[in-house]
Amino acid sequence: MSAFKTASCGLDFAAVPDIQEGLHVATASKYHFVTFPITHPNFKREFIKGKAKNRPGPITRSDMILCSSDWSQYIVGKLSPYIDVDSTVPFIAKNSRETINQELSFATHLGLIAITIKLKGNLEKTMNLAQIVYNKIAAEPHFQAFIWVQVPMENPMKQVYSHREDKNVDEMEVENTWNWWNSFRIVCNYHKKLIVALVVSNDVPDKEEVLRWIGEPVKCLIIPTSVFITNKKGYPVLSKGHQDLIKAFVPLDVQYIITGSNRHQNIAYYYHYLDHLWKNWQPDGTIERFARGFEDYLQNPLQPLMDNLESSTYEIFEKDPIKYELYQRAIQSALVDRADLKKKEKDDTPIVVMVVGAGRGPLVRAALNASISTRTTIKLYAVEKNPNAIITLQALKKEMWGDQVTIVSSDMREWKAPEKCDILVSELLGSFGDNELSPECLDGAQKFLKDDGISIPQAYSSYLAPVQANKLYNEVRAAKSTNEHESNFEMPYVVQFQNKYDIDEPQILFTFVHPNKDDPIDNSRYGKNTFKASQDCILHGFSGYFDCQLYKDVMMSIEPRTHSPKMFSWFPIFFPIKTPVHLKAGDEIVSHFWRCGNTKNVWYEWSVEKPIPVAIHNPNGRSSKIGL
Amino acid sequence: MSAFKTASCGLDFAAVPDIQEGLHVATASKYHFVTFPITHPNFKREFIKGKAKNRPGPITRSDMILCSSDWSQYIVGKLSPYIDVDSTVPFIAKNSRETINQELSFATHLGLIAITIKLKGNLEKTMNLAQIVYNKIAAEPHFQAFIWVQVPMENPMKQVYSHREDKNVDEMEVENTWNWWNSFRIVCNYHKKLIVALVVSNDVPDKEEVLRWIGEPVKCLIIPTSVFITNKKGYPVLSKGHQDLIKAFVPLDVQYIITGSNRHQNIAYYYHYLDHLWKNWQPDGTIERFARGFEDYLQNPLQPLMDNLESSTYEIFEKDPIKYELYQRAIQSALVDRADLKKKEKDDTPIVVMVVGAGRGPLVRAALNASISTRTTIKLYAVEKNPNAIITLQALKKEMWGDQVTIVSSDMREWKAPEKCDILVSELLGSFGDNELSPECLDGAQKFLKDDGISIPQAYSSYLAPVQANKLYNEVRAAKSTNEHESNFEMPYVVQFQNKYDIDEPQILFTFVHPNKDDPIDNSRYGKNTFKASQDCILHGFSGYFDCQLYKDVMMSIEPRTHSPKMFSWFPIFFPIKTPVHLKAGDEIVSHFWRCGNTKNVWYEWSVEKPIPVAIHNPNGRSSKIGL
Repeated sequence: MSAFKTASCGLDFAAVPDIQEGLHVATASKYHFVTFPITHPNFKREFIKGKAKNRPGPITRSDMILCSSDWSQYIVGKLSPYIDVDSTVPFIAKNSRETINQELSFATHLGLIAITIKLKGNLEKTMNLAQIVYNKIAAEPHFQAFIWVQVPMENPMKQVYSHREDKNVDEMEVENTWNWWNSFRIVCNYHKKLIVALVVSNDVPDKEEVLRWIGEPVKCLIIPTSVFITNKKGYPVLSKGHQDLIKAFVPLDVQYIITGSNRHQNIAYYYHYLDHLWKNWQPDGTIERFARGFEDYLQNPLQPLMDNLESSTYEIFEKDPIKYELYQRAIQSALVDRADLKKKEKDDTPIVVMVVGAGRGPLVRAALNASISTRTTIKLYAVEKNPNAIITLQALKKEMWGDQVTIVSSDMREWKAPEKCDILVSELLGSFGDNELSPECLDGAQKFLKDDGISIPQAYSSYLAPVQANKLYNEVRAAKSTNEHESNFEMPYVVQFQNKYDIDEPQILFTFVHPNKDDPIDNSRYGKNTFKASQDCILHGFSGYFDCQLYKDVMMSIEPRTHSPKMFSWFPIFFPIKTPVHLKAGDEIVSHFWRCGNTKNVWYEWSVEKPIPVAIHNPNGRSSKIGL
Repeated sequence: MSAFKTASCGLDFAAVPDIQEGLHVATASKYHFVTFPITHPNFKREFIKGKAKNRPGPITRSDMILCSSDWSQYIVGKLSPYIDVDSTVPFIAKNSRETINQELSFATHLGLIAITIKLKGNLEKTMNLAQIVYNKIAAEPHFQAFIWVQVPMENPMKQVYSHREDKNVDEMEVENTWNWWNSFRIVCNYHKKLIVALVVSNDVPDKEEVLRWIGEPVKCLIIPTSVFITNKKGYPVLSKGHQDLIKAFVPLDVQYIITGSNRHQNIAYYYHYLDHLWKNWQPDGTIERFARGFEDYLQNPLQPLMDNLESSTYEIFEKDPIKYELYQRAIQSALVDRADLKKKEKDDTPIVVMVVGAGRGPLVRAALNASISTRTTIKLYAVEKNPNAIITLQALKKEMWGDQVTIVSSDMREWKAPEKCDILVSELLGSFGDNELSPECLDGAQKFLKDDGISIPQAYSSYLAPVQANKLYNEVRAAKSTNEHESNFEMPYVVQFQNKYDIDEPQILFTFVHPNKDDPIDNSRYGKNTFKASQDCILHGFSGYFDCQLYKDVMMSIEPRTHSPKMFSWFPIFFPIKTPVHLKAGDEIVSHFWRCGNTKNVWYEWSVEKPIPVAIHNPNGRSSKIGL
């Protein structure tokens, strides 16, 4: 999961009389990096005419103290604490502007890869800081450093107010510091070089607040030594609450910084303890293993109907340990029901099973296994349109299956079946259920299902949830548009969400039932959903899932609350929106989704009605459609 | 002003038994066009399997009734009134969808250039209508018609509630119909083919509400005959309130539609009366004449410092009847003051006047006139960097001015003056005051101004106001970006605003004073302004203006409240924002503007803090800058 083999941890120095000595102390205690002031406090300057008045000499120690690879590898630069470019005192603001420009310029000269700045409030206290930082990162080609934006998890005013007896803290409406970060990064246009360094608070925040941070580009947790408690043996440890807090950020591959005075025997103890926790927390589940490297990576949904899948794609999906087990159980149950029926009707012909979209045969195998375990006799047709997969199926028939299985090389929508079947088995579902056109395919195939025959799956539904996903928004934005309508925002993506915040729980959107007895069949759909934001956040789009009733009580799901354990065949889907929507706690989010189609294509359109309207995405499938 | 020579007025038909007869009636009464239902009510259909069930025959009368140029020239199509694609009854919604698609398709076949639809509520009642319309206009290349979106000026519920005694109307919070339109056009992504056809209400709305409509693409006023009153002679006329209301829309070049039953002797009377009013309202002022054709037309600001102006540009600006009069008055006043001073000091040398940026000489002429009228003796230097303009100046010297005037071909920032002057006259202002770099130029030129000398202008300030400007937003959006940062939104435009709504009054932003005695001189600026929205609206950017103290009480201004009458040399400036911001009545708008510079360029950056943050535009001048 992690890019590191041990916890990556830095040590913060408030002041550094000797930079080499400081770096030595840190690395000797196994810290991976240090944070130092870019300039020595002794070098504080006042600017007159753009030149330092009181110090005409150097602004800080020489860059020769360390070799350049050390500067870039080990040092995170800190700005001088007296810089206040948003001061209401013009002289201070002006002087601060000169100072910060000089320090950022010097940091660039040193080749630092990270510079950390502190947010001390919302935009009324940070707008000029944002303007200066954004100027550097957005428009100066030589400025390579990342900006670690320090945000306290808890508004310091909360502590101040809680000590005042004359006021009720709740009434003071202390602003949540997430809003500081949120507005700062918005005025900096979501720039990728801005990352969050969260300062862990003494009081652990609410779970929802923590989850919201998980949706942000948090790359560092700054842990004050004061947060640690001392165990019986005298070592620093964290409370259960703080452990859980820090654990929550493990999936984001965060680094750590220890700050504050050493309150224990050895500064190394903090690192040792963190590293110990970190190693215990490394995930090792099936899905995690499978998903490794795919977190937040946007993929275009498969179009198996238009394109023939490749061998490797089949191979990946056939490895799912759960999916075919579920199918086998569903087929077993259906076979038992059909066998009972035949017994009643004194019909001793074999049960006819058709696998449509047989691929390289996993469902054929599941059906044959089901037949054996239920001691039923079946006759099996394996229908597949991909001529490459047919080769595999024919080999399997020759080597293993024999005459019980008939291989049919045809598109299921065109095949003229020689007889009707009792059970029609398919696996045509996409991450959003119907998005690989299972409804259209099965509508075509059901003509060779007996009137009382069984379709496996029997039904499936898509689910939708509003999501805050800073990173994905940025990824989509960076993708090239293939038309003038920002097509990158007008298409869904398959993605293993990681760096996201679920604004509300998923809700059902579209449902399809098979066989479909409607006349005429209409696979267009329209759905309106109302969600609610429990706290201030940003809507970047919608996550999509499906669940599926294979047969009777055999369910298969990627909807988070009912996800089939250990099944990895589907990542969720993501529908982005072009304009992020600011949500206030309590806001209703009303979404509209359409499933549209004509004789050649199917596509989705989506829009938001509340809290503010958002343009309809993908009208007429102009940017994304699924070919029939 | 108008594209028409008479008021363009249409006649609405609720039903048309005979289309040729209807068209004849209308044109005989001088109406320019008619609105007809696209299909005959008798042809109402129910759709089963995508085909009309009860009417297998034609859906309406044949297209052969009129020739195709008549269809496109005279007919605005109306949808069948029973269409309700947003019905909560699935059958009705589905049937309506089939019907509307059929009617829109038939309208396309007829070649209609306008189709009118009615908004009956906000998105909860119009989202599917929006989706269907947007699909047509955005993504169907053959769909050429404009959509005239009928919006009632007054929510019909207001009338309903006002007749109920048990409820207080104000308490019912009847939604303003502007919100219906606003959300509809947003989900249709501000599409240019959507225009507003406002239905005039019996009660005249508040002035601010009317002004907000002026910021929208209103191209038609629908006037019910019930709004007319009858004068003593029995003719239909409008109340003073309704006249003012309709007059407010004249600058938008609106057309009219008369609807409702004829309540007077002849249906032609309504048209005659409207045409009479309309002709009286055609503007004919100096500024209007000068601005004709430039309304809402975006221009890049001049860069006279980097580029040499062309002869025709000089010619246009020299025609301003007011500007040079104001300059002459200012110079007169300054000459009198200097003459008094010299008298006291018993100095009888001539007053030295330098015109920097003399162009083709209008300021030289103003100074010479001022000298004559004040009976003062002056020595005049005319400094100009454009070698083409120098030719004109030298000709004028030879033919008219003689030795009193010395022509200097030089950039004022580089010229080595042979003596210092008493009065330094310049006209280097742009629409936003300092945006043509007057501060930087005069800082360079002031070295040849005597210590107690006078600069004309003495001071100038830029002004800023939040503006809703649907049309300009669309124009900016349609402009090509020259970099990957939507540079089209990161530059100011000079524009004669017409189709806009001023959200709040202008406020002062930056001020510059000359001569500038600061050491060092710093022409960078930062300004934060707080505005307020009095009603729901959309922020599309900021309009910019300047005022200027030429000398003492001689002011020159394009700030709307103090605009120098009849002066036309400057249109306002417009700073767009990339993401329109939804404003609620009472919302504060906090803007931040920076004037930044280095040795080569000056540029502006801008951002919004409240009600929601907006990314900083134009960091480091990456998309627009002014060359020094």
